[in-house]
Amino acid sequence: MVNTRDYLPDQSVLRTIAQTESIEEDRLLRLIEQGRVVIPHNTIREHPPLAIGEATKVKVNVNVGTSQDLCSPDLEREKAQSALSEGAHTLMDLSTGGDLTAIRRMILSFPVPVGTVPVYEAVRRAGNAVDVDADLLFRVIRDQCKEGVDFLTLHCGVNQEVFSSLCEDPRRMGVVSRGGAFHVAMMAAREEDNPLWTEFDYLCEILSEYGVVASLGDGMRPGCYEDAVREAKTVEYLNLGRLARRSHDLGVPRMIEGPGHMPLEQIGYNVRMIKELTRNAPLYLLGPLVTDIAAGYDHVAGAIGGAIACKYGANFLCMVSPSEHLALPRVHDIAEGTRAAVLAAHVGDLLSGRPDACNRERLMGEARQKLDWEKQFSLALFPKTAREIHGRDPENETCSMCGDLCAVKMVRDLFKSPDVSDSEKY
Amino acid sequence: MVNTRDYLPDQSVLRTIAQTESIEEDRLLRLIEQGRVVIPHNTIREHPPLAIGEATKVKVNVNVGTSQDLCSPDLEREKAQSALSEGAHTLMDLSTGGDLTAIRRMILSFPVPVGTVPVYEAVRRAGNAVDVDADLLFRVIRDQCKEGVDFLTLHCGVNQEVFSSLCEDPRRMGVVSRGGAFHVAMMAAREEDNPLWTEFDYLCEILSEYGVVASLGDGMRPGCYEDAVREAKTVEYLNLGRLARRSHDLGVPRMIEGPGHMPLEQIGYNVRMIKELTRNAPLYLLGPLVTDIAAGYDHVAGAIGGAIACKYGANFLCMVSPSEHLALPRVHDIAEGTRAAVLAAHVGDLLSGRPDACNRERLMGEARQKLDWEKQFSLALFPKTAREIHGRDPENETCSMCGDLCAVKMVRDLFKSPDVSDSEKY
Repeated sequence: MVNTRDYLPDQSVLRTIAQTESIEEDRLLRLIEQGRVVIPHNTIREHPPLAIGEATKVKVNVNVGTSQDLCSPDLEREKAQSALSEGAHTLMDLSTGGDLTAIRRMILSFPVPVGTVPVYEAVRRAGNAVDVDADLLFRVIRDQCKEGVDFLTLHCGVNQEVFSSLCEDPRRMGVVSRGGAFHVAMMAAREEDNPLWTEFDYLCEILSEYGVVASLGDGMRPGCYEDAVREAKTVEYLNLGRLARRSHDLGVPRMIEGPGHMPLEQIGYNVRMIKELTRNAPLYLLGPLVTDIAAGYDHVAGAIGGAIACKYGANFLCMVSPSEHLALPRVHDIAEGTRAAVLAAHVGDLLSGRPDACNRERLMGEARQKLDWEKQFSLALFPKTAREIHGRDPENETCSMCGDLCAVKMVRDLFKSPDVSDSEKY
Repeated sequence: MVNTRDYLPDQSVLRTIAQTESIEEDRLLRLIEQGRVVIPHNTIREHPPLAIGEATKVKVNVNVGTSQDLCSPDLEREKAQSALSEGAHTLMDLSTGGDLTAIRRMILSFPVPVGTVPVYEAVRRAGNAVDVDADLLFRVIRDQCKEGVDFLTLHCGVNQEVFSSLCEDPRRMGVVSRGGAFHVAMMAAREEDNPLWTEFDYLCEILSEYGVVASLGDGMRPGCYEDAVREAKTVEYLNLGRLARRSHDLGVPRMIEGPGHMPLEQIGYNVRMIKELTRNAPLYLLGPLVTDIAAGYDHVAGAIGGAIACKYGANFLCMVSPSEHLALPRVHDIAEGTRAAVLAAHVGDLLSGRPDACNRERLMGEARQKLDWEKQFSLALFPKTAREIHGRDPENETCSMCGDLCAVKMVRDLFKSPDVSDSEKY
């Protein structure tokens, strides 16, 4: 039986996070106890603690990983480095090609929380999805926990009810979550329910041994505009709610994964519904992509959806790259996608009125008014990019498009400026 | 006196637009009569008619133009070509360097509505803002109308009341609209009110002679996060409302320009407020930029703001380039910025439930399900970009990140797909 207090962080972790997030320790502890904040941190790993959930900054994850078509550990290392240098907070290793353990070890060498999707490795070991049984799946989960992974995407909510609902209210794209598709294929072939659903308590026991956070996967995330209103997704929400409550009772920290492809006006109620059913568990979103026809610019479609989702309570955004739907991502795709997600996360922080985020905006206004470029770069979300663009025009003292006729310069002596204190930490 | 029926389009224009926009002619005519839709079309020009406003597709404008620091007509031509090939609907020539008439003639050679900001040329002719008087300003306006410009940004609402409000409720960035700054500098130096405000009826007479649309400029658009709640902007909204009603009474079509830098949660009520005060005049927005610290990614910040603004009634989005706040834009900045704005405009069309936009999403879902790449490219907002990214992986039959383990392929035979008719025009 799981000890329901084991998952609580020690005092020093609590203090560090409370300081980083500008939140009182007591409140942080209460949010963790309530399952509204998680700290993905395998007991055998060392990295700065990071909190995900209510009253903390919106975090950004970046997926890396080999496939059998494109398998270069060096490329994955570069992608991970690029993601972290652009502001990502966590990495997920979704590798399916090459020496999975070696690649995972390499990704685990980065000092951030790392996640995986164990069913991918289970399928690799078995050769195909239909030969994956419960034993193999739990063995892979335990192995990855032992290796130090901090959070695992587990599609526990993809059960027979979800399967039926896919048949009764069919979707254009079927299943676009790879993990979801594996479980559906397994259930279809073996005529058994998903072991992660039927043996959820056992799963929780394994996770709690290593202090690993469950990321309850959205196997039914809609794959296109019209699928967003099919019921499979909602059947899974209900399951995820039950599992979130159960794991909380067992003292196993968890977060919830969410859609997917979703029209903008549906994001608010979907996010609220998931939050309600899961008792405000931390919510981790891929996108949502607010249009299907932006291939090449899905990072922008995802940033729009992500910002809006944060308005309603999303806590953790997964980067979508410009190569989404088109090709396997390269380093520059990861950089672009990460920046778009980091931007959306910051907009999320502004929406929840975080004083550090708002103050940084104020300081940027002041730096712009003074045409203080160094200060602007230091406050920018992407200092390197900003500096590069600015640097291409020699002696550029003015703003974009104004050139010689800078509006700010023209009137800045006519009116006094309001006072602002830049001593505040941003 | 202006004839109040002169501005109505002839039957063939009405028919063309009704078809393009999938709207009934009667309804379109009523919206034009009510001042809710405008068709920027100088009587001496020839280009396909384009409608801006309620019940029509959200349109995208791209600003081009020389400055004294960077003056190359060839570069501006390339920028304009790039903008149009990425989906922009109109161009604005904001040139301040070189032979303004020649550059304008070149931009006017593109078969789309073209706008300008006449006060820029007035300042160029006078040498500086404080030497611009009413005669010069009206002369430039008349000259540009004669040359065939379709819509003019005119900062008519920047009057003494606005000036006082800038003094009483000061803003960090003062004035960031260049046109706004010119008028403020003129008022400050000459101790006279803005002639575009005091002689608005005369202005309307000039415009109506050439069938030119007034774009009532937002000289007080906030220039940073904290300025968004200062009163100058709202004082100008009131003025723009009065001017919108007056020009409507005079039979002169007009649209309204809007913010600017604005936190996401403020966009909705600002857009609604402008719409209410101006009797639902077409609304043309720059951004809004939902954060100040995204330099290098302001096109993404603008796409987030633009999509949300469309939700509340914005009709026309001005491209923001990645070089905004940093440098004068180059061709690739224009292409990037245009694509982000076109994406936001499409999200706006989805939000208003336009059947053509929604159907295009549905067809894309179908093409993806069939892994029909040619169909996907033909439906994509940016076919060239999508094709390029897809083309870099040889024999790429699968989706991004899945590589050899494509979820869609894995389960597509397990469930039947819903029926969709692809005979519908998107």
